[in-house]
Amino acid sequence: MKKLLASKYKLLKVRGYAIIYGRDTVAGKLFDLILLGFILLSAFLTIFESIQIIDEHIHTLLVVLEWIITVFFSIEYALRIICTPKWRRYVFSFYGVIDLISILPIYLSFFVQKSKFLSIIRILRLLRIFRILDLVQFTQQANQLKRALKNSQTKILVFIYFVLVLCVTLGALMYMIEPHDKAFTSIPRSIYWCIVTLTTVGYGDVVPTTAFGQFMASIIMILGYGIIAVPTGLVTSEYSRAYRKKEPHKSDTSHKMPQDIGYPHSHTHGHCKYCNTYPLPDDALYCPKCGKRQ
Amino acid sequence: MKKLLASKYKLLKVRGYAIIYGRDTVAGKLFDLILLGFILLSAFLTIFESIQIIDEHIHTLLVVLEWIITVFFSIEYALRIICTPKWRRYVFSFYGVIDLISILPIYLSFFVQKSKFLSIIRILRLLRIFRILDLVQFTQQANQLKRALKNSQTKILVFIYFVLVLCVTLGALMYMIEPHDKAFTSIPRSIYWCIVTLTTVGYGDVVPTTAFGQFMASIIMILGYGIIAVPTGLVTSEYSRAYRKKEPHKSDTSHKMPQDIGYPHSHTHGHCKYCNTYPLPDDALYCPKCGKRQ
Amino acid sequence: MKKLLASKYKLLKVRGYAIIYGRDTVAGKLFDLILLGFILLSAFLTIFESIQIIDEHIHTLLVVLEWIITVFFSIEYALRIICTPKWRRYVFSFYGVIDLISILPIYLSFFVQKSKFLSIIRILRLLRIFRILDLVQFTQQANQLKRALKNSQTKILVFIYFVLVLCVTLGALMYMIEPHDKAFTSIPRSIYWCIVTLTTVGYGDVVPTTAFGQFMASIIMILGYGIIAVPTGLVTSEYSRAYRKKEPHKSDTSHKMPQDIGYPHSHTHGHCKYCNTYPLPDDALYCPKCGKRQ
Amino acid sequence: MKKLLASKYKLLKVRGYAIIYGRDTVAGKLFDLILLGFILLSAFLTIFESIQIIDEHIHTLLVVLEWIITVFFSIEYALRIICTPKWRRYVFSFYGVIDLISILPIYLSFFVQKSKFLSIIRILRLLRIFRILDLVQFTQQANQLKRALKNSQTKILVFIYFVLVLCVTLGALMYMIEPHDKAFTSIPRSIYWCIVTLTTVGYGDVVPTTAFGQFMASIIMILGYGIIAVPTGLVTSEYSRAYRKKEPHKSDTSHKMPQDIGYPHSHTHGHCKYCNTYPLPDDALYCPKCGKRQ
Repeated sequence: MKKLLASKYKLLKVRGYAIIYGRDTVAGKLFDLILLGFILLSAFLTIFESIQIIDEHIHTLLVVLEWIITVFFSIEYALRIICTPKWRRYVFSFYGVIDLISILPIYLSFFVQKSKFLSIIRILRLLRIFRILDLVQFTQQANQLKRALKNSQTKILVFIYFVLVLCVTLGALMYMIEPHDKAFTSIPRSIYWCIVTLTTVGYGDVVPTTAFGQFMASIIMILGYGIIAVPTGLVTSEYSRAYRKKEPHKSDTSHKMPQDIGYPHSHTHGHCKYCNTYPLPDDALYCPKCGKRQ
Repeated sequence: MKKLLASKYKLLKVRGYAIIYGRDTVAGKLFDLILLGFILLSAFLTIFESIQIIDEHIHTLLVVLEWIITVFFSIEYALRIICTPKWRRYVFSFYGVIDLISILPIYLSFFVQKSKFLSIIRILRLLRIFRILDLVQFTQQANQLKRALKNSQTKILVFIYFVLVLCVTLGALMYMIEPHDKAFTSIPRSIYWCIVTLTTVGYGDVVPTTAFGQFMASIIMILGYGIIAVPTGLVTSEYSRAYRKKEPHKSDTSHKMPQDIGYPHSHTHGHCKYCNTYPLPDDALYCPKCGKRQ
Repeated sequence: MKKLLASKYKLLKVRGYAIIYGRDTVAGKLFDLILLGFILLSAFLTIFESIQIIDEHIHTLLVVLEWIITVFFSIEYALRIICTPKWRRYVFSFYGVIDLISILPIYLSFFVQKSKFLSIIRILRLLRIFRILDLVQFTQQANQLKRALKNSQTKILVFIYFVLVLCVTLGALMYMIEPHDKAFTSIPRSIYWCIVTLTTVGYGDVVPTTAFGQFMASIIMILGYGIIAVPTGLVTSEYSRAYRKKEPHKSDTSHKMPQDIGYPHSHTHGHCKYCNTYPLPDDALYCPKCGKRQ
Repeated sequence: MKKLLASKYKLLKVRGYAIIYGRDTVAGKLFDLILLGFILLSAFLTIFESIQIIDEHIHTLLVVLEWIITVFFSIEYALRIICTPKWRRYVFSFYGVIDLISILPIYLSFFVQKSKFLSIIRILRLLRIFRILDLVQFTQQANQLKRALKNSQTKILVFIYFVLVLCVTLGALMYMIEPHDKAFTSIPRSIYWCIVTLTTVGYGDVVPTTAFGQFMASIIMILGYGIIAVPTGLVTSEYSRAYRKKEPHKSDTSHKMPQDIGYPHSHTHGHCKYCNTYPLPDDALYCPKCGKRQ
């Protein structure tokens, strides 16, 4: 009897796995679509709740719906752990962590009111959309993008480090130049201004007011002009390379035939005077074909 | 009699087609130029009407002129449908839809006052300018641009999807961090701020005010720094490729020797004297097909 | 006597030409340096005059100096016309026009007060700096830049045309959506907003206030995200090409040897069974060397 | 006795050099880490001191700590000069100057209060982090970045020169167009506005208010659209080139056959049996040097 139950439980686990993780069965596809709908719905709920006018009118509805979704997500999370043979791998995966963060804030909102809005992070579950909808081409493109970014990762890190050191230095400089009463009240605020300027965002909430400050700001802006070119250049060249590697048979000549390189001047060579062999090697005294002296 | 009329009608249709769609006859060119003038005029009318000071003085003139143009456009639209042999194809084409939208809003303005301004969409008809003025080079370039954008379409879509999910998540995060009374009053507004920031537009109408909010904003800006590089990289590499593919015969073969393309040395090669195999390999003594000595 | 005068005058003209246009004599170099100094000085004068606090104190000095410089420039302009054998070519050249515009506004300021500031255009004479200082490398780079921009000229024009049509359409759309009392008071102002947004400048002086307006603005911004990539892509690929063309012997393989292309599968070919000739052509039945059947 | 002291002093110098400049000994690594900690601490001290709320509470602590660090840095600076055999080289190196500027402002703050904040420049010492932590890969990437920027240096300088001349001209133009009372109060301010606009920073503190001014601003913005593409294009193509040059052996040869590089078919070629000429051409029957049959 116990054995039977155990085997039935095992069967259920396999089936559950096929439904939750798989996309081959009808039930699996249905599950994915329902999940997608719930994620979207939950995102909209959180957004609506943050809009005061909407929240005032249908607050109770929103809360009830949110709890329903949270319970659904909790069950799904539990099932995902139960059904997979390697639950540890799931729990500590990127999506495993997101799935957990999607539920926790709601439960935590018993204690900390604001934490509820953190549940919007469940919208990150939408990144699974390509996997769910089985959009092969999209997944491929996403992977290509990811790879290009990953390849230029170190460069981007080095670059950001430089930019940060630059921002701190220039921020402190501006703090010295500008009066402290209005905009540049502290060095962190000056650094914030510097980042806003160098990234060309330029809110205008912190702005130099003295002539010399504006002069310095102009220099920093023109500096930022050159700096903004760097990450673009990095990603572009990285991306072009990834591209070229992927389709060498199409666009480039890496499948070249042996004679490509070397013999650079062979096109100025003469033909063999006797057997017309062409081209003669660079410094041939004798024709390699007929053996006659040139 | 009826037959004569029908044949005359048919002749008129053909002539009308030549005038409206063609650019070979003088009448056709004239028609195109008049159309161009009317489109420009109509765009300026709509713009003038929106400027209060101008509208106050010459309101009646503007309205009359607008009606004249609308009637002209309506007749043109009708003629276009009548004259073309495949009217369905025209009606549902890009320009067919625009042509319709160029007329409808004025008629609709009987009922909905504001809809009138939608007629500015008729300025999109100006996109036909390259076709009208027969600027071959421009059309070519426009097509090249279009193709490059089309090729990177999927990538750009994937990219925009990522950016949107990112904006929603970061917007909700900022909503949690910042006070709700001044700038970040709701999550949609926070998302709006996030888009304004990530695209480096940076209006400054929504701005973080707390120290921690400014810190987070700085991180988001530097993030946006890297992100803005991606679409540029995509389009650049796509464009370079389209370029390279398009004109290998122009730019790449300039330094090449004649034998570069196709079979090596084919210009010096003979055909096989016996079986006409062509081209014979470089230094063939025997035909590789029939085995006969050359 | 008259003949002597004429020949002397001719000699003077030649000498003047060497001094004004040339850089080989000491006098010519000195003239260029003095000119450079005067251009810079005149730019600073115009700038100082525009700053009220400075202008109040040394107004007379500034005016006197400005007149001295203007007279100097006028004489220089006259001499340039007199000394060159092809004065028409000079007068209608880029720098000839700038030289004229550098003098005229001051004389015009007798009639139109404000026109004086137009004389700042004389700072464009500074573009001659590379020629004056004989900075070969810089001139080269400047030319390279100019060429790259010239090559992508048509594309950039097509692109700007599209952007303008887009801005007018989107501007009118936003005018319809937003209330007319605060920011979007007219279609031209909406178009201005649209350009400010699409170019990611984002002043924040015109800003959408309604939720739907902000939603539309978000879409336009993300659109602008993709659009800003286009000119960068254009210039980059154009520039890379100009580069590649310039140094083909260094980086690319355009000086390839004949056998580069063609015979794509030759590396899978066998050796001749009898004479070991390698590689055998694609569909060889007989060895082209020894004539034996394979 | 004196000799002994001298030799001991010399030994100390060598040891000190190993500790301060080297990273091979445990003491050297420890020194580097402590230094790193002190640099970070000192940066945070300066930042804290600029924040009024923090400074009010722990002002004395901050000042004391700052003096300790400054004394430590002074001793380190002295030791660096004493221990290195080529102190002149150190003092006038990039880091030597920074090390000095890191100490001086604090001592100067006896006389000039504000100068203290200049000591934040000591954060530039953090640039040494790659060297300190011995992050080979990072240093490599940083060097690659540096090289790419250095290669495009002249171009960027030419470009910035053009942009500056453009900004002055356009700034003066806008000064003429706009009223002087609100935003465009002087030409330098107009130039500042022009730089803010062309770099797409767009604070919004100086903004055109007249219709014609906004029209001109729109043109300038679209101009800036094209201009921002230039530095990106420069760096990208420069970077791609640096890349291609650096690793032809890594990425390009992956698909190649062995014969690709160097002499064609050299692996199948023999040496001439008689005169040892190497390599013999592809299908040589006779040595091209000595004419002997192979």
